[in-house]
Amino acid sequence: MDGTEDLGSSQSRERFRSDSEAMTRALSLARKGLGSVEPNPPVGAVIVDSQGKLIAEGYHQRYGGPHAEVVALENAASEVRGGTLYVTLEPCSHHGKTPPCADAVIAAGLSKVVIGTMDPAEHVCGQGIERLRAAGIMVEVGVCEPEALQLIAAFKKLQCEKLPYLHAKWAMTLDGRIASRTKASKWISNERSRSIVHQLRGRMDGILTGIGTVLADDPLLTARPQGPRIPTRIVLDRQLRLPLDSQLIRTADDAPVLVFCTDQALEQRIQQVEGLGVEVEVVEIDSQTNQVDLTAVLTELGRRQMTNVLIESGGTLLGSLIDQDCVDEVHCFIAPRIIGGQGAISPILGNGFDTMDQARQLRNSVVEVLDGDVYIRGELIRSGMNQLGSE
Amino acid sequence: MDGTEDLGSSQSRERFRSDSEAMTRALSLARKGLGSVEPNPPVGAVIVDSQGKLIAEGYHQRYGGPHAEVVALENAASEVRGGTLYVTLEPCSHHGKTPPCADAVIAAGLSKVVIGTMDPAEHVCGQGIERLRAAGIMVEVGVCEPEALQLIAAFKKLQCEKLPYLHAKWAMTLDGRIASRTKASKWISNERSRSIVHQLRGRMDGILTGIGTVLADDPLLTARPQGPRIPTRIVLDRQLRLPLDSQLIRTADDAPVLVFCTDQALEQRIQQVEGLGVEVEVVEIDSQTNQVDLTAVLTELGRRQMTNVLIESGGTLLGSLIDQDCVDEVHCFIAPRIIGGQGAISPILGNGFDTMDQARQLRNSVVEVLDGDVYIRGELIRSGMNQLGSE
Repeated sequence: MDGTEDLGSSQSRERFRSDSEAMTRALSLARKGLGSVEPNPPVGAVIVDSQGKLIAEGYHQRYGGPHAEVVALENAASEVRGGTLYVTLEPCSHHGKTPPCADAVIAAGLSKVVIGTMDPAEHVCGQGIERLRAAGIMVEVGVCEPEALQLIAAFKKLQCEKLPYLHAKWAMTLDGRIASRTKASKWISNERSRSIVHQLRGRMDGILTGIGTVLADDPLLTARPQGPRIPTRIVLDRQLRLPLDSQLIRTADDAPVLVFCTDQALEQRIQQVEGLGVEVEVVEIDSQTNQVDLTAVLTELGRRQMTNVLIESGGTLLGSLIDQDCVDEVHCFIAPRIIGGQGAISPILGNGFDTMDQARQLRNSVVEVLDGDVYIRGELIRSGMNQLGSE
Repeated sequence: MDGTEDLGSSQSRERFRSDSEAMTRALSLARKGLGSVEPNPPVGAVIVDSQGKLIAEGYHQRYGGPHAEVVALENAASEVRGGTLYVTLEPCSHHGKTPPCADAVIAAGLSKVVIGTMDPAEHVCGQGIERLRAAGIMVEVGVCEPEALQLIAAFKKLQCEKLPYLHAKWAMTLDGRIASRTKASKWISNERSRSIVHQLRGRMDGILTGIGTVLADDPLLTARPQGPRIPTRIVLDRQLRLPLDSQLIRTADDAPVLVFCTDQALEQRIQQVEGLGVEVEVVEIDSQTNQVDLTAVLTELGRRQMTNVLIESGGTLLGSLIDQDCVDEVHCFIAPRIIGGQGAISPILGNGFDTMDQARQLRNSVVEVLDGDVYIRGELIRSGMNQLGSE
């Protein structure tokens, strides 16, 4: 695969009827890079001639590889001079792992560049656009911008806040329970839902869970089959109770395990666990929750350039993350069955919010029916973002 | 309205390509009677000529009015002799409020009758079919039978079990809560979802709730706008605590209010409440739950020929009904927002089930997205039915 499609002869080439149609194609090309390009952003590009006919397309395929614009330019089926480039993200203007894309675009003699959204990275932000305009190229910004922003949301968070983009996942019954009163939870969702979860895992940098879930379920937390990246299994474990014979430790050679504990863990225990191939980080304790300090954990994950992290935990950890407004996206699987029971387990605990006005809203939510299960995913509007009304 | 559509000229008349296509039409006609025909079953009928061209159609429009077959026969646009009748339910063979439909069908000279499903009522069950066959008419039974059975599920329950068909309705957040930890619940679902609830109410015989919900929310429980029938507001209220200035009592002249209490209610209080236009029934107390005995309540509602009853209550009553396997259909509205909180309120309490295998399954579930809310409805497989595997 070289990041292009066979474009066929000139006669059969596709013609786009609008900017948004061409950008939609570029966006769907970009999505092919999800899970392979991080911590870079996924980017897609399409080049059309003056009649709107498709000349070339490409996308950023893997971290360190050529950028989407360059892939498209290199694979052009005919002369691109005078054509228009549609690219989901502002072309870069700096020397990183590859030379600046803006220069390549200028050298190719394109007359117009249509951009989904500006690059939020400090060292780009508008400079790529300026460079193009200075060379006399017509530049338009903001075509399909909501979709373009959604695509780079995780990249943007890591760039701007130095924190990973957190996906929360849970599967619940139609009465909103993740386990029965006896803590039985196998299986709530069906095979197709579970396969979606494995696909999600396979494009994550980390899977975050709490020691409670590990002790209750002894989960493996790997993507099966394997996806474009192997996520680090991350456990929050104040006292380092992670069992030495847990599935996580037994598979530590196949996929990394990272445990966050506090000074409540014994030094000897830390050494024992480390000796079994597990990485242990000692962080502060949160005096309010008496748990591992979440800010310290997320800061460390950001420092490690983790772009996407999936939370697969019980309600206590997920509740704390919701309370602290750390969750960016939710993936909720609802099975068409009722477990009932006063003592059955709910997905999100913590403090919660007092009124429905304060409840965290989803946006851009998508609903899919998967063999009877209902899969609802969407971005969570964070309270700060909400107040700013920025997006 | 006379229960028919304008069929136009012979040239433009619709031709059905299969039995199931004609029956699907008859089923959708039948649905127009929902809420108007009870305690009769909704029935639809279509008559086609020997070429499969539509000659006539009709449906049972209101209790006491003519049956679907007769409506169709009376409104035939041309000669029906030698034609085929598609009817969602077996034609009746007895003199009820109207003469037997089987006789009308025989007299009309139809050569074939295709039936969705047999009439489960003891005094019909197969006798209509026998009567047609004895007259030399070809009879086929079971075309679109699952849909035909679903359509008469409430009728069947009242006929066979002498109990109302119970619909459970709740609106919850994406984390499965019907109220926040402070019991705030206004509004979880959006306007479109709430308007669906009003439509549901408008075809019910009763709306069932518990005194807890009345004390917390002071609900009106009417259909706004009004539907084909005015449901009785039914309150389970062991000690008869219903406030005299509640919205229910204040509107008792507009829509009936029926309260079930126990001998824990004071005689004086009963008289006071009755004096305000509320009907009070004293029933046994359930020694296990220390609540109004549900079997006694449902038996009384069945005795009153209530076909469809909607439960709009808190988790305690709904949990008891689920535990006792009384619920037939669920209507769950899920809002794309998260309230969180250890102490937030779940929709179904009671004892519940221990394992996911024991959880009550939905069947024939339908998922609709209503301006962002997700509406999941389906029939609940009752444990007895499940074990029998009868349907």
